Amino acid sequence: MCSPVVMEKVAQEISRRNLLKGGGAIAAVSATGLAGLHRQARAQTTAEATPIGNGFVFPSFSTVFDLTHTWGPDFPVFYGATSPVFEVLATVDPNGFYKMWLQFDEHTGTHMDAPGHFVADGMTADLLPIEQFFAPLVVIDISAKAADDPDAQGTVEDLATWEAEYGAIPAGAFVALNSGWGAKTADPAAFINLDADNVQHFPGWHADAAAELVARGISGAGVDTASLDHGPSADFAAHLTFLPAGVFGIEGLANLDSVPAHGAHVIIGGPKHVAASGGPSRVFAVL
Amino acid sequence: MCSPVVMEKVAQEISRRNLLKGGGAIAAVSATGLAGLHRQARAQTTAEATPIGNGFVFPSFSTVFDLTHTWGPDFPVFYGATSPVFEVLATVDPNGFYKMWLQFDEHTGTHMDAPGHFVADGMTADLLPIEQFFAPLVVIDISAKAADDPDAQGTVEDLATWEAEYGAIPAGAFVALNSGWGAKTADPAAFINLDADNVQHFPGWHADAAAELVARGISGAGVDTASLDHGPSADFAAHLTFLPAGVFGIEGLANLDSVPAHGAHVIIGGPKHVAASGGPSRVFAVL
Repeated sequence: MCSPVVMEKVAQEISRRNLLKGGGAIAAVSATGLAGLHRQARAQTTAEATPIGNGFVFPSFSTVFDLTHTWGPDFPVFYGATSPVFEVLATVDPNGFYKMWLQFDEHTGTHMDAPGHFVADGMTADLLPIEQFFAPLVVIDISAKAADDPDAQGTVEDLATWEAEYGAIPAGAFVALNSGWGAKTADPAAFINLDADNVQHFPGWHADAAAELVARGISGAGVDTASLDHGPSADFAAHLTFLPAGVFGIEGLANLDSVPAHGAHVIIGGPKHVAASGGPSRVFAVL
Repeated sequence: MCSPVVMEKVAQEISRRNLLKGGGAIAAVSATGLAGLHRQARAQTTAEATPIGNGFVFPSFSTVFDLTHTWGPDFPVFYGATSPVFEVLATVDPNGFYKMWLQFDEHTGTHMDAPGHFVADGMTADLLPIEQFFAPLVVIDISAKAADDPDAQGTVEDLATWEAEYGAIPAGAFVALNSGWGAKTADPAAFINLDADNVQHFPGWHADAAAELVARGISGAGVDTASLDHGPSADFAAHLTFLPAGVFGIEGLANLDSVPAHGAHVIIGGPKHVAASGGPSRVFAVL
Protein backbone atom coordinates (compact mmCIF):
# COMPACT_ATOMS: atom_id res chain seq x y z
CA MET A 1 0.00 0.00 0.00
CA CYS A 2 1.19 3.55 -0.69
CA SER A 3 2.12 5.95 2.09
CA PRO A 4 -0.83 7.92 3.47
CA VAL A 5 0.42 11.10 1.86
CA VAL A 6 0.74 9.52 -1.58
CA MET A 7 -2.70 7.97 -1.14
CA GLU A 8 -4.22 11.31 -0.17
CA LYS A 9 -2.52 13.02 -3.10
CA VAL A 10 -3.93 10.46 -5.55
CA ALA A 11 -7.37 10.93 -4.06
CA GLN A 12 -7.04 14.70 -4.17
CA GLU A 13 -5.95 14.61 -7.80
CA ILE A 14 -8.86 12.40 -8.80
CA SER A 15 -11.17 14.68 -6.87
CA ARG A 16 -9.86 17.84 -8.54
CA ARG A 17 -10.15 16.38 -12.01
CA ASN A 18 -13.64 15.29 -11.24
CA LEU A 19 -14.78 18.52 -9.69
CA LEU A 20 -13.24 20.81 -12.28
CA LYS A 21 -14.15 18.88 -15.40
CA GLY A 22 -17.39 17.38 -14.21
CA GLY A 23 -16.28 13.89 -15.14
CA GLY A 24 -13.18 11.76 -15.18
CA ALA A 25 -12.26 8.24 -14.32
CA ILE A 26 -14.41 8.14 -11.20
CA ALA A 27 -17.72 9.84 -11.78
CA ALA A 28 -20.56 10.81 -9.53
CA VAL A 29 -22.55 7.71 -8.72
CA SER A 30 -26.14 7.04 -7.80
CA ALA A 31 -27.08 5.24 -4.63
CA THR A 32 -27.59 2.15 -6.76
CA GLY A 33 -24.05 2.40 -8.06
CA LEU A 34 -22.67 2.89 -4.57
CA ALA A 35 -24.52 -0.15 -3.33
CA GLY A 36 -22.93 -2.12 -6.13
CA LEU A 37 -19.50 -1.14 -4.81
CA HIS A 38 -20.21 -3.02 -1.64
CA ARG A 39 -22.38 -5.89 -2.83
CA GLN A 40 -24.56 -5.54 0.24
CA ALA A 41 -28.30 -5.31 0.39
CA ARG A 42 -29.45 -1.95 1.68
CA ALA A 43 -32.86 -0.70 2.70
CA GLN A 44 -33.66 2.98 2.97
CA THR A 45 -35.24 2.31 6.32
CA THR A 46 -33.56 0.19 8.94
CA ALA A 47 -35.12 -2.35 11.24
CA GLU A 48 -37.17 -1.50 14.24
CA ALA A 49 -36.47 -2.01 17.92
CA THR A 50 -32.90 -3.05 18.64
CA PRO A 51 -31.90 -4.29 22.08
CA ILE A 52 -28.63 -2.55 22.95
CA GLY A 53 -26.89 -5.76 23.84
CA ASN A 54 -27.04 -8.92 25.88
CA GLY A 55 -29.14 -7.49 28.65
CA PHE A 56 -27.06 -4.28 28.77
CA VAL A 57 -29.06 -1.45 30.28
CA PHE A 58 -27.87 2.05 29.43
CA PRO A 59 -27.90 3.93 32.75
CA SER A 60 -29.93 7.03 33.53
CA PHE A 61 -28.05 10.34 33.26
CA SER A 62 -28.49 14.02 34.00
CA THR A 63 -25.41 15.61 32.43
CA VAL A 64 -24.25 15.69 28.82
CA PHE A 65 -20.80 16.53 27.44
CA ASP A 66 -20.50 17.43 23.78
CA LEU A 67 -17.49 15.58 22.38
CA THR A 68 -18.07 17.16 18.93
CA HIS A 69 -16.16 20.07 17.44
CA THR A 70 -17.91 22.73 15.43
CA TRP A 71 -16.41 22.23 11.96
CA GLY A 72 -16.36 24.00 8.63
CA PRO A 73 -14.08 25.35 5.89
CA ASP A 74 -11.39 26.32 8.44
CA PHE A 75 -11.30 23.03 10.35
CA PRO A 76 -7.97 21.16 10.06
CA VAL A 77 -7.90 18.18 7.67
CA PHE A 78 -5.48 15.29 7.22
CA TYR A 79 -2.49 16.34 5.11
CA GLY A 80 -3.38 16.24 1.41
CA ALA A 81 -7.14 16.11 1.94
CA THR A 82 -9.41 18.87 0.63
CA SER A 83 -11.09 21.31 3.02
CA PRO A 84 -14.87 21.69 3.04
CA VAL A 85 -16.56 24.25 0.80
CA PHE A 86 -19.87 25.70 2.00
CA GLU A 87 -22.01 27.78 -0.35
CA VAL A 88 -24.93 29.90 0.76
CA LEU A 89 -27.93 29.04 -1.43
CA ALA A 90 -30.38 31.54 0.04
CA THR A 91 -30.68 33.99 2.93
CA VAL A 92 -33.70 35.09 4.98
CA ASP A 93 -33.45 38.52 3.38
CA PRO A 94 -34.48 38.39 0.49
CA ASN A 95 -35.34 34.69 0.05
CA GLY A 96 -37.37 34.11 3.21
CA PHE A 97 -35.08 31.29 4.35
CA TYR A 98 -31.40 30.57 4.76
CA LYS A 99 -29.59 27.40 3.73
CA MET A 100 -26.29 26.13 2.40
CA TRP A 101 -24.95 23.62 -0.11
CA LEU A 102 -22.24 21.61 1.67
CA GLN A 103 -19.28 20.00 -0.05
CA PHE A 104 -16.77 18.00 1.96
CA ASP A 105 -14.64 14.91 2.35
CA GLU A 106 -16.42 12.37 4.57
CA HIS A 107 -13.38 12.38 6.88
CA THR A 108 -13.82 15.92 8.19
CA GLY A 109 -14.59 17.35 11.62
CA THR A 110 -15.40 15.00 14.47
CA HIS A 111 -16.09 12.00 12.25
CA MET A 112 -16.47 8.27 12.02
CA ASP A 113 -14.22 5.79 10.22
CA ALA A 114 -16.37 2.79 9.34
CA PRO A 115 -14.77 -0.60 8.67
CA GLY A 116 -15.47 -0.08 4.94
CA HIS A 117 -13.05 2.88 4.93
CA PHE A 118 -10.13 0.41 4.82
CA VAL A 119 -11.77 -2.95 4.17
CA ALA A 120 -12.97 -3.90 0.67
CA ASP A 121 -16.67 -4.79 0.97
CA GLY A 122 -16.43 -3.84 4.66
CA MET A 123 -19.35 -2.59 6.71
CA THR A 124 -20.16 1.04 5.92
CA ALA A 125 -21.36 3.49 8.57
CA ASP A 126 -24.98 3.37 7.45
CA LEU A 127 -25.02 -0.39 8.09
CA LEU A 128 -23.29 -0.51 11.47
CA PRO A 129 -25.47 -2.05 14.18
CA ILE A 130 -26.77 0.84 16.29
CA GLU A 131 -26.07 -0.99 19.52
CA GLN A 132 -22.38 -0.19 18.88
CA PHE A 133 -23.29 3.51 19.29
CA PHE A 134 -24.29 3.18 22.97
CA ALA A 135 -21.32 2.19 25.08
CA PRO A 136 -19.38 2.65 28.32
CA LEU A 137 -16.69 5.31 27.83
CA VAL A 138 -13.06 4.63 28.71
CA VAL A 139 -10.64 7.58 28.40
CA ILE A 140 -6.92 6.79 28.23
CA ASP A 141 -4.95 9.94 29.05
CA ILE A 142 -1.58 10.28 27.32
CA SER A 143 -1.57 14.07 27.34
CA ALA A 144 1.50 14.30 29.57
CA LYS A 145 3.74 12.28 27.28
CA ALA A 146 2.18 13.83 24.16
CA ALA A 147 3.11 17.30 25.45
CA ASP A 148 6.75 16.17 25.27
CA ASP A 149 6.45 14.05 22.13
CA PRO A 150 3.86 14.87 19.45
CA ASP A 151 4.38 11.40 17.95
CA ALA A 152 3.36 9.69 21.22
CA GLN A 153 1.16 6.62 20.97
CA GLY A 154 -1.44 5.00 23.20
CA THR A 155 0.25 1.73 24.16
CA VAL A 156 -0.53 -1.57 25.85
CA GLU A 157 1.19 -0.10 28.94
CA ASP A 158 -1.21 2.86 28.92
CA LEU A 159 -4.13 0.42 28.89
CA ALA A 160 -2.60 -1.46 31.82
CA THR A 161 -2.20 1.77 33.78
CA TRP A 162 -5.89 2.56 33.29
CA GLU A 163 -6.92 -0.97 34.28
CA ALA A 164 -4.79 -0.87 37.41
CA GLU A 165 -6.85 2.08 38.57
CA TYR A 166 -10.34 1.30 37.28
CA GLY A 167 -10.52 -2.43 36.57
CA ALA A 168 -10.96 -4.29 33.30
CA ILE A 169 -11.96 -2.37 30.19
CA PRO A 170 -15.55 -3.52 29.63
CA ALA A 171 -16.51 -5.51 26.55
CA GLY A 172 -18.44 -3.22 24.23
CA ALA A 173 -16.67 -0.09 25.52
CA PHE A 174 -15.80 2.93 23.41
CA VAL A 175 -12.13 3.64 24.21
CA ALA A 176 -10.87 7.17 23.55
CA LEU A 177 -7.32 8.47 23.62
CA ASN A 178 -6.96 11.89 25.24
CA SER A 179 -3.73 13.38 23.91
CA GLY A 180 -4.52 17.04 24.55
CA TRP A 181 -4.92 17.62 20.80
CA GLY A 182 -8.61 18.50 21.12
CA ALA A 183 -7.63 22.00 22.26
CA LYS A 184 -5.62 22.67 19.08
CA THR A 185 -8.31 22.63 16.36
CA ALA A 186 -8.54 26.42 16.18
CA ASP A 187 -4.93 26.35 14.96
CA PRO A 188 -4.82 23.89 12.02
CA ALA A 189 -1.03 24.19 11.70
CA ALA A 190 -0.59 23.07 15.30
CA PHE A 191 -3.21 20.33 14.99
CA ILE A 192 -1.69 18.73 11.86
CA ASN A 193 1.85 19.75 12.82
CA LEU A 194 3.61 19.20 9.50
CA ASP A 195 7.42 19.16 9.40
CA ALA A 196 9.67 20.41 6.59
CA ASP A 197 9.34 17.02 4.87
CA ASN A 198 5.54 17.19 4.99
CA VAL A 199 5.34 14.49 7.64
CA GLN A 200 2.53 14.98 10.17
CA HIS A 201 3.25 14.85 13.90
CA PHE A 202 0.35 14.11 16.24
CA PRO A 203 -0.51 11.26 18.62
CA GLY A 204 -2.49 8.11 17.84
CA TRP A 205 -3.01 4.47 18.81
CA HIS A 206 -0.14 1.96 18.70
CA ALA A 207 -1.10 -1.14 16.69
CA ASP A 208 -0.35 -3.41 19.66
CA ALA A 209 -2.79 -1.46 21.86
CA ALA A 210 -5.34 -1.63 19.03
CA ALA A 211 -4.90 -5.42 18.92
CA GLU A 212 -5.33 -5.62 22.70
CA LEU A 213 -8.55 -3.55 22.52
CA VAL A 214 -9.90 -5.68 19.69
CA ALA A 215 -9.23 -8.75 21.84
CA ARG A 216 -11.29 -7.17 24.64
CA GLY A 217 -14.28 -6.85 22.31
CA ILE A 218 -14.60 -3.06 22.26
CA SER A 219 -17.18 -1.47 19.97
CA GLY A 220 -15.29 1.65 18.94
CA ALA A 221 -12.02 3.55 19.36
CA GLY A 222 -11.53 7.31 19.48
CA VAL A 223 -8.81 9.91 19.13
CA ASP A 224 -8.75 13.71 19.52
CA THR A 225 -6.33 13.95 16.57
CA ALA A 226 -6.77 13.66 12.80
CA SER A 227 -6.13 9.90 12.67
CA LEU A 228 -6.38 6.68 14.68
CA ASP A 229 -2.70 6.25 13.73
CA HIS A 230 -0.13 8.76 14.90
CA GLY A 231 0.99 11.38 12.39
CA PRO A 232 4.20 9.80 11.04
CA SER A 233 2.56 6.40 10.44
CA ALA A 234 3.34 5.12 6.96
CA ASP A 235 1.24 1.96 7.19
CA PHE A 236 -2.07 2.79 8.95
CA ALA A 237 -1.35 -0.09 11.34
CA ALA A 238 -3.92 0.98 13.95
CA HIS A 239 -6.64 1.52 11.33
CA LEU A 240 -5.81 -1.89 9.85
CA THR A 241 -6.17 -3.52 13.26
CA PHE A 242 -9.40 -1.85 14.42
CA LEU A 243 -11.45 -1.64 11.23
CA PRO A 244 -11.16 -5.21 9.89
CA ALA A 245 -12.32 -6.37 13.35
CA GLY A 246 -15.55 -4.37 12.98
CA VAL A 247 -14.42 -1.72 15.48
CA PHE A 248 -15.34 1.74 14.17
CA GLY A 249 -13.17 4.80 14.81
CA ILE A 250 -14.06 8.35 15.77
CA GLU A 251 -11.39 10.93 14.92
CA GLY A 252 -11.21 14.56 16.01
CA LEU A 253 -13.04 14.20 19.34
CA ALA A 254 -13.51 17.33 21.49
CA ASN A 255 -13.52 17.84 25.25
CA LEU A 256 -11.91 14.53 26.22
CA ASP A 257 -10.08 16.42 28.97
CA SER A 258 -13.46 17.32 30.52
CA VAL A 259 -14.98 13.86 30.93
CA PRO A 260 -14.13 11.32 33.61
CA ALA A 261 -11.67 8.57 32.69
CA HIS A 262 -14.17 5.99 33.92
CA GLY A 263 -17.89 5.84 34.56
CA ALA A 264 -19.38 7.91 31.73
CA HIS A 265 -21.11 6.48 28.65
CA VAL A 266 -21.12 7.61 25.04
CA ILE A 267 -23.89 8.04 22.50
CA ILE A 268 -22.59 8.17 18.93
CA GLY A 269 -24.77 9.91 16.35
CA GLY A 270 -23.02 8.35 13.39
CA PRO A 271 -23.66 9.27 9.74
CA LYS A 272 -26.35 7.44 7.77
CA HIS A 273 -25.75 8.38 4.16
CA VAL A 274 -25.62 5.41 1.83
CA ALA A 275 -22.30 3.57 1.46
CA ALA A 276 -20.65 5.88 4.02
CA SER A 277 -16.94 5.20 4.54
CA GLY A 278 -17.55 7.42 7.56
CA GLY A 279 -18.61 11.00 8.09
CA PRO A 280 -19.26 13.81 10.53
CA SER A 281 -20.87 12.47 13.69
CA ARG A 282 -22.46 14.00 16.77
CA VAL A 283 -20.86 12.43 19.83
CA PHE A 284 -22.11 12.88 23.37
CA ALA A 285 -20.76 11.62 26.69
CA VAL A 286 -23.34 11.32 29.45
CA LEU A 287 -23.08 10.92 33.19
CA MET B 1 -42.48 36.30 1.06
CA CYS B 2 -42.44 34.27 -2.15
CA SER B 3 -44.14 30.87 -2.40
CA PRO B 4 -41.93 27.95 -1.36
CA VAL B 5 -41.60 26.80 -4.93
CA VAL B 6 -40.49 30.22 -6.19
CA MET B 7 -38.07 30.46 -3.28
CA GLU B 8 -36.63 27.03 -4.02
CA LYS B 9 -36.30 27.89 -7.70
CA VAL B 10 -34.39 31.07 -6.91
CA ALA B 11 -32.10 29.15 -4.61
CA GLN B 12 -31.61 26.43 -7.16
CA GLU B 13 -30.76 28.94 -9.85
CA ILE B 14 -28.21 30.69 -7.66
CA SER B 15 -26.78 27.32 -6.76
CA ARG B 16 -26.47 26.20 -10.38
CA ARG B 17 -24.77 29.41 -11.44
CA ASN B 18 -22.42 29.10 -8.57
CA LEU B 19 -21.60 25.46 -9.09
CA LEU B 20 -21.18 25.63 -12.84
CA LYS B 21 -19.24 28.85 -13.07
CA GLY B 22 -17.39 28.61 -9.79
CA GLY B 23 -18.51 32.05 -8.73
CA GLY B 24 -21.53 34.33 -8.99
CA ALA B 25 -23.42 36.63 -6.71
CA ILE B 26 -23.12 34.37 -3.69
CA ALA B 27 -19.71 32.79 -3.46
CA ALA B 28 -18.25 30.09 -1.31
CA VAL B 29 -17.54 31.54 2.10
CA SER B 30 -15.09 30.78 4.86
CA ALA B 31 -16.22 30.00 8.37
CA THR B 32 -15.31 33.56 9.27
CA GLY B 33 -17.61 34.87 6.56
CA LEU B 34 -20.41 32.58 7.67
CA ALA B 35 -20.08 33.74 11.23
CA GLY B 36 -20.42 37.29 10.01
CA LEU B 37 -23.76 36.39 8.47
CA HIS B 38 -25.09 35.68 11.90
CA ARG B 39 -23.26 38.16 14.07
CA GLN B 40 -22.86 35.55 16.77
CA ALA B 41 -19.71 34.59 18.58
CA ARG B 42 -18.70 31.02 17.86
CA ALA B 43 -16.08 28.79 19.38
CA GLN B 44 -14.82 25.69 17.61
CA THR B 45 -15.22 23.76 20.82
CA THR B 46 -18.34 24.04 22.94
CA ALA B 47 -18.62 24.24 26.68
CA GLU B 48 -18.17 21.33 28.97
CA ALA B 49 -20.69 19.55 31.18
CA THR B 50 -24.26 20.57 30.48
CA PRO B 51 -27.05 19.56 32.85
CA ILE B 52 -29.91 18.33 30.68
CA GLY B 53 -32.46 20.53 32.36
CA ASN B 54 -33.93 21.61 35.65
CA GLY B 55 -33.23 18.39 37.45
CA PHE B 56 -34.45 16.31 34.50
CA VAL B 57 -32.99 12.82 34.64
CA PHE B 58 -32.90 10.94 31.36
CA PRO B 59 -34.14 7.43 32.19
CA SER B 60 -32.21 4.22 31.72
CA PHE B 61 -33.05 2.24 28.57
CA SER B 62 -32.33 -1.10 26.95
CA THR B 63 -33.86 -0.72 23.48
CA VAL B 64 -33.06 1.69 20.67
CA PHE B 65 -35.16 2.57 17.60
CA ASP B 66 -33.43 4.25 14.68
CA LEU B 67 -35.65 7.11 13.50
CA THR B 68 -33.17 7.96 10.72
CA HIS B 69 -33.49 7.06 7.06
CA THR B 70 -30.51 5.98 5.04
CA TRP B 71 -30.18 8.81 2.51
CA GLY B 72 -28.23 9.56 -0.63
CA PRO B 73 -28.56 10.70 -4.25
CA ASP B 74 -31.90 8.90 -4.65
CA PHE B 75 -33.56 10.19 -1.47
CA PRO B 76 -36.60 12.44 -2.13
CA VAL B 77 -36.05 16.18 -1.73
CA PHE B 78 -38.46 19.13 -1.39
CA TYR B 79 -39.73 20.22 -4.80
CA GLY B 80 -37.18 22.44 -6.53
CA ALA B 81 -34.27 21.49 -4.28
CA THR B 82 -31.17 19.80 -5.67
CA SER B 83 -30.45 16.13 -4.93
CA PRO B 84 -27.17 15.10 -3.31
CA VAL B 85 -24.15 14.24 -5.43
CA PHE B 86 -21.66 11.76 -3.98
CA GLU B 87 -18.28 11.26 -5.65
CA VAL B 88 -15.95 8.39 -4.88
CA LEU B 89 -12.48 9.83 -4.19
CA ALA B 90 -10.66 6.55 -3.66
CA THR B 91 -11.35 2.84 -3.29
CA VAL B 92 -9.58 0.15 -1.26
CA ASP B 93 -8.34 -1.39 -4.49
CA PRO B 94 -6.07 0.30 -5.64
CA ASN B 95 -5.84 3.22 -3.18
CA GLY B 96 -5.79 1.30 0.10
CA PHE B 97 -8.83 3.15 1.41
CA TYR B 98 -12.29 4.14 0.31
CA LYS B 99 -13.92 7.53 0.78
CA MET B 100 -16.32 9.95 -0.85
CA TRP B 101 -16.71 13.67 -1.47
CA LEU B 102 -20.26 14.60 -0.45
CA GLN B 103 -22.24 17.47 -1.94
CA PHE B 104 -25.75 18.19 -0.72
CA ASP B 105 -28.34 20.70 0.41
CA GLU B 106 -28.42 20.90 4.21
CA HIS B 107 -32.12 20.02 4.11
CA THR B 108 -31.72 16.45 2.90
CA GLY B 109 -32.48 13.07 4.45
CA THR B 110 -33.65 12.90 8.05
CA HIS B 111 -32.55 16.41 8.93
CA MET B 112 -32.83 19.31 11.32
CA ASP B 113 -34.33 22.74 10.66
CA ALA B 114 -32.64 25.16 13.08
CA PRO B 115 -34.32 28.45 14.01
CA GLY B 116 -31.80 30.26 11.77
CA HIS B 117 -33.28 28.48 8.73
CA PHE B 118 -36.17 30.98 8.77
CA VAL B 119 -35.11 33.63 11.28
CA ALA B 120 -32.55 36.29 10.35
CA ASP B 121 -29.70 36.06 12.89
CA GLY B 122 -31.55 33.10 14.42
CA MET B 123 -29.86 30.29 16.31
CA THR B 124 -28.08 27.89 13.97
CA ALA B 125 -27.89 24.14 14.63
CA ASP B 126 -24.28 24.26 15.81
CA LEU B 127 -25.29 26.68 18.56
CA LEU B 128 -28.46 24.97 19.83
CA PRO B 129 -28.23 24.02 23.52
CA ILE B 130 -27.61 20.28 23.61
CA GLU B 131 -30.15 19.78 26.37
CA GLN B 132 -32.80 20.27 23.66
CA PHE B 133 -31.53 17.06 22.05
CA PHE B 134 -32.55 14.80 24.97
CA ALA B 135 -36.31 14.79 25.41
CA PRO B 136 -39.47 12.81 26.12
CA LEU B 137 -40.99 11.61 22.84
CA VAL B 138 -44.64 12.28 22.01
CA VAL B 139 -45.97 10.71 18.80
CA ILE B 140 -49.19 12.12 17.34
CA ASP B 141 -50.65 9.62 14.91
CA ILE B 142 -52.61 11.07 11.99
CA SER B 143 -51.89 8.21 9.62
CA ALA B 144 -55.57 7.21 9.32
CA LYS B 145 -56.73 10.63 8.10
CA ALA B 146 -53.55 11.09 6.01
CA ALA B 147 -54.32 7.85 4.16
CA ASP B 148 -57.55 9.51 2.97
CA ASP B 149 -56.15 13.02 2.53
CA PRO B 150 -52.48 13.58 1.68
CA ASP B 151 -52.84 17.25 2.69
CA ALA B 152 -53.91 16.28 6.23
CA GLN B 153 -52.51 18.35 9.10
CA GLY B 154 -51.74 17.67 12.73
CA THR B 155 -54.25 19.87 14.53
CA VAL B 156 -55.06 21.14 18.00
CA GLU B 157 -57.76 18.44 18.11
CA ASP B 158 -55.15 15.75 17.43
CA LEU B 159 -53.11 17.04 20.36
CA ALA B 160 -56.21 16.93 22.56
CA THR B 161 -56.90 13.32 21.53
CA TRP B 162 -53.37 12.34 22.55
CA GLU B 163 -53.64 14.18 25.87
CA ALA B 164 -57.00 12.57 26.66
CA GLU B 165 -55.25 9.21 26.52
CA TYR B 166 -51.80 9.96 27.96
CA GLY B 167 -52.02 13.18 29.95
CA ALA B 168 -50.40 16.53 29.35
CA ILE B 169 -47.63 16.85 26.75
CA PRO B 170 -44.54 17.37 28.92
CA ALA B 171 -42.58 20.63 28.75
CA GLY B 172 -39.37 19.98 26.86
CA ALA B 173 -40.91 17.14 24.82
CA PHE B 174 -40.04 16.35 21.22
CA VAL B 175 -43.40 16.01 19.45
CA ALA B 176 -43.47 14.00 16.23
CA LEU B 177 -46.27 13.67 13.71
CA ASN B 178 -46.71 10.13 12.37
CA SER B 179 -48.51 10.45 9.04
CA GLY B 180 -47.45 7.15 7.53
CA TRP B 181 -45.17 8.98 5.09
CA GLY B 182 -42.02 7.40 6.55
CA ALA B 183 -42.74 4.24 4.58
CA LYS B 184 -42.74 6.10 1.23
CA THR B 185 -39.14 7.32 0.95
CA ALA B 186 -38.11 4.53 -1.42
CA ASP B 187 -40.60 6.04 -3.91
CA PRO B 188 -39.72 9.75 -4.19
CA ALA B 189 -42.72 10.46 -6.45
CA ALA B 190 -45.10 9.13 -3.78
CA PHE B 191 -43.24 10.90 -0.95
CA ILE B 192 -43.29 14.35 -2.60
CA ASN B 193 -46.58 13.65 -4.40
CA LEU B 194 -46.54 16.49 -6.93
CA ASP B 195 -49.73 17.29 -8.84
CA ALA B 196 -50.02 18.54 -12.42
CA ASP B 197 -49.55 22.12 -11.21
CA ASN B 198 -46.34 21.20 -9.35
CA VAL B 199 -48.00 21.54 -5.95
CA GLN B 200 -46.77 19.05 -3.36
CA HIS B 201 -49.23 16.95 -1.36
CA PHE B 202 -48.07 15.48 1.93
CA PRO B 203 -49.05 15.98 5.59
CA GLY B 204 -47.60 18.48 8.06
CA TRP B 205 -48.35 20.51 11.18
CA HIS B 206 -51.19 23.03 11.27
CA ALA B 207 -50.00 26.44 12.47
CA ASP B 208 -52.52 26.44 15.33
CA ALA B 209 -51.16 23.14 16.63
CA ALA B 210 -47.64 24.54 16.27
CA ALA B 211 -48.68 27.56 18.37
CA GLU B 212 -50.20 25.27 20.99
CA LEU B 213 -47.00 23.19 21.16
CA VAL B 214 -44.87 26.32 21.45
CA ALA B 215 -47.08 27.42 24.34
CA ARG B 216 -46.40 24.08 26.06
CA GLY B 217 -42.65 24.73 25.92
CA ILE B 218 -41.63 21.83 23.68
CA SER B 219 -38.00 21.57 22.57
CA GLY B 220 -38.51 20.22 19.06
CA ALA B 221 -41.12 19.13 16.52
CA GLY B 222 -40.89 16.32 13.99
CA VAL B 223 -42.53 15.08 10.82
CA ASP B 224 -42.04 11.99 8.66
CA THR B 225 -42.59 14.11 5.52
CA ALA B 226 -40.41 16.62 3.64
CA SER B 227 -41.61 19.65 5.60
CA LEU B 228 -43.01 20.78 8.95
CA ASP B 229 -45.76 22.42 6.85
CA HIS B 230 -48.03 20.28 4.71
CA GLY B 231 -47.24 20.09 1.00
CA PRO B 232 -49.60 22.74 -0.39
CA SER B 233 -48.56 25.37 2.17
CA ALA B 234 -47.74 28.67 0.49
CA ASP B 235 -46.70 30.52 3.64
CA PHE B 236 -44.60 28.14 5.80
CA ALA B 237 -46.94 28.97 8.70
CA ALA B 238 -45.83 26.03 10.88
CA HIS B 239 -42.14 26.74 10.28
CA LEU B 240 -42.76 30.39 11.11
CA THR B 241 -44.44 29.41 14.38
CA PHE B 242 -41.96 26.82 15.63
CA LEU B 243 -38.61 28.27 14.57
CA PRO B 244 -38.88 31.86 15.86
CA ALA B 245 -39.81 30.33 19.24
CA GLY B 246 -36.51 28.44 19.36
CA VAL B 247 -38.19 25.09 18.64
CA PHE B 248 -36.10 23.13 16.16
CA GLY B 249 -37.67 20.82 13.57
CA ILE B 250 -36.71 17.36 12.35
CA GLU B 251 -38.05 16.46 8.91
CA GLY B 252 -38.05 13.07 7.22
CA LEU B 253 -38.21 10.91 10.34
CA ALA B 254 -38.27 7.11 9.92
CA ASN B 255 -40.01 4.37 11.88
CA LEU B 256 -42.49 6.57 13.76
CA ASP B 257 -45.02 3.78 13.33
CA SER B 258 -42.75 1.48 15.36
CA VAL B 259 -42.32 3.54 18.51
CA PRO B 260 -44.84 3.93 21.33
CA ALA B 261 -47.02 7.07 21.27
CA HIS B 262 -45.99 7.77 24.85
CA GLY B 263 -43.17 6.77 27.18
CA ALA B 264 -40.13 6.69 24.90
CA HIS B 265 -37.42 9.37 24.78
CA VAL B 266 -35.41 10.77 21.88
CA ILE B 267 -31.74 11.51 21.45
CA ILE B 268 -31.06 13.89 18.56
CA GLY B 269 -27.59 13.76 17.00
CA GLY B 270 -27.91 17.16 15.31
CA PRO B 271 -25.41 18.61 12.85
CA LYS B 272 -22.51 20.70 14.12
CA HIS B 273 -21.04 22.37 11.06
CA VAL B 274 -20.58 26.11 11.45
CA ALA B 275 -23.58 28.36 10.73
CA ALA B 276 -25.79 25.32 10.03
CA SER B 277 -29.33 26.21 8.95
CA GLY B 278 -29.87 22.53 9.68
CA GLY B 279 -28.55 19.30 8.28
CA PRO B 280 -28.65 15.52 8.30
CA SER B 281 -29.11 14.24 11.85
CA ARG B 282 -28.99 10.87 13.56
CA VAL B 283 -32.15 10.44 15.58
CA PHE B 284 -32.75 7.63 18.07
CA ALA B 285 -35.76 6.77 20.20
CA VAL B 286 -34.98 4.78 23.33
CA LEU B 287 -37.12 2.78 25.72
